[in-house]
Amino acid sequence: MRVFKPSFRRVSVISPMSSANLSVGFDVLGVALDAYHDELDIELDKNKKGITISSNVNLTGENTAKRAAELFFKKVGYAGGATIKLVKGIPAGKGLGSSGASAAGAVFALNVAFGNALSLSDVIDIAAKSESSPHADNVSASILGGFAFVHSKSPYNAFSIYRKWKFYLIIPRSETPESKTELLRKALGEPVPFEKYVEEKYALNSMLRGLLYDEPESFGKGMNVESYHQLIRSRTGLYSDYLKLKGSLIEAGALGVCISGAGPSILLLPGKETSIKTIKSVLEEKEVEADIIEANVSEGIKTKNMEI
Amino acid sequence: MRVFKPSFRRVSVISPMSSANLSVGFDVLGVALDAYHDELDIELDKNKKGITISSNVNLTGENTAKRAAELFFKKVGYAGGATIKLVKGIPAGKGLGSSGASAAGAVFALNVAFGNALSLSDVIDIAAKSESSPHADNVSASILGGFAFVHSKSPYNAFSIYRKWKFYLIIPRSETPESKTELLRKALGEPVPFEKYVEEKYALNSMLRGLLYDEPESFGKGMNVESYHQLIRSRTGLYSDYLKLKGSLIEAGALGVCISGAGPSILLLPGKETSIKTIKSVLEEKEVEADIIEANVSEGIKTKNMEI
Repeated sequence: MRVFKPSFRRVSVISPMSSANLSVGFDVLGVALDAYHDELDIELDKNKKGITISSNVNLTGENTAKRAAELFFKKVGYAGGATIKLVKGIPAGKGLGSSGASAAGAVFALNVAFGNALSLSDVIDIAAKSESSPHADNVSASILGGFAFVHSKSPYNAFSIYRKWKFYLIIPRSETPESKTELLRKALGEPVPFEKYVEEKYALNSMLRGLLYDEPESFGKGMNVESYHQLIRSRTGLYSDYLKLKGSLIEAGALGVCISGAGPSILLLPGKETSIKTIKSVLEEKEVEADIIEANVSEGIKTKNMEI
Repeated sequence: MRVFKPSFRRVSVISPMSSANLSVGFDVLGVALDAYHDELDIELDKNKKGITISSNVNLTGENTAKRAAELFFKKVGYAGGATIKLVKGIPAGKGLGSSGASAAGAVFALNVAFGNALSLSDVIDIAAKSESSPHADNVSASILGGFAFVHSKSPYNAFSIYRKWKFYLIIPRSETPESKTELLRKALGEPVPFEKYVEEKYALNSMLRGLLYDEPESFGKGMNVESYHQLIRSRTGLYSDYLKLKGSLIEAGALGVCISGAGPSILLLPGKETSIKTIKSVLEEKEVEADIIEANVSEGIKTKNMEI
């Protein structure tokens, strides 16, 4: 096995949030957005063993950035240690790809430190495997930018299509239950009615057409088709705000509305008439307390600083 | 309603065959191929009512070209009649988009005759609705050429991506039962296991990557994932040759193997080592009698002749 040596001692990166499970793209379609980001500063120390991590927020349990660094070091055969400083800018537990952005940022930063020892495909694979429930739509979007299409899970790999589009995130202020992941995982697995299965194929092609032809209307039309994973998950009760809002948001001019990631945040593709004001009036009418955040499609992780 | 008048009295076109239900693209993905085509010669007669059709083959029941012409005339408000001469080059009942090519050719030719009165989207919609069981993957491929992605069914609409790729068609010599359509329709409708549902999303993205990046390997990888509609349909016994051959053809170097349309023909994307000779040796080994036909991706319907 080839052993790689670092080119830089210290690398810092900015890793954007992402909105995954994009409509019918369960596990396979995500988009990187610039509304929130994590910053990671990684310093290598060849005389040390293990990885220490510190953050501006309380890190509970195993952190994905740390796990990602461990997997990266194993892959490149690096026996030293590292210190990770993580500035979390992405709210956790809201379906905004927070843990994915940390994992993606760590692998990406380390790969820069090691002179791009690994391909972007390897970076995606390691980042995906750093999550407690492996999937690649979040990390691929953060890494590649734009709309990430995951096409392989052995190893995880993806490609992306970039469009300079604007979205809005509607982030409910209600508390997310601690058992969110468990609840949502349990909700999956039921067989999909054949008609729904076919309907989702049309919807994915409609979204694809929107991206290839720069037609947000076509993307929104596909985006509005409720995916089966989302229909099943709705029964958990975690998406009550979403179900209250979706139809009214579309009536008020939104081209597309779907749950962001595992929710409860809502991803909204605006039409010409949609503004924070129109969204706010729908929220008030439906008595939902939420923050409305403008979010442009992001170009993906950026290196901020490198030191030899 | 605007009433259109014909610009040409007579138009003839060449309409290529297509391979639809392409792997996981049930009802939504087809490819136009140049191996076989139909020729249609349509002559308008404003002093006549109704449509007469003649052909080099025995036309049983209602013909899709005639039905397509009826729908077209209704759409443009034309009160005259027409004579259609149909030269069938595409074998029927083999899953090669034979009825779709005739329908597509008729609408396309008439639209040329009427000075492109309708958009290509309208042409696709009318052609799709001319089939006894409406779907648009065959007709969209014949009309647009390349790989057709159907993204809407109300009205039917599609876009296409062209790649200069070569395929092989393996057309079993065994008789197709008369009740093929009925058998196959009955076989559909069962709910899809959740894992399969997710697996197909990865596969479609893999095929998409192949098309966007000109990577036949990635297309073939997705193409090899058996779609659920195909798994259910296999139980009809119509695909026994396919099931015998698929694994061995991949072992012999094929990048992708799937059923063409509703079968029993097989669509094969060759690897560098695949030739008619290597395919023939697999057929012999498995004792399957079939014709092997080279087929390049077609650019779609071409106008052959116009007369004022």
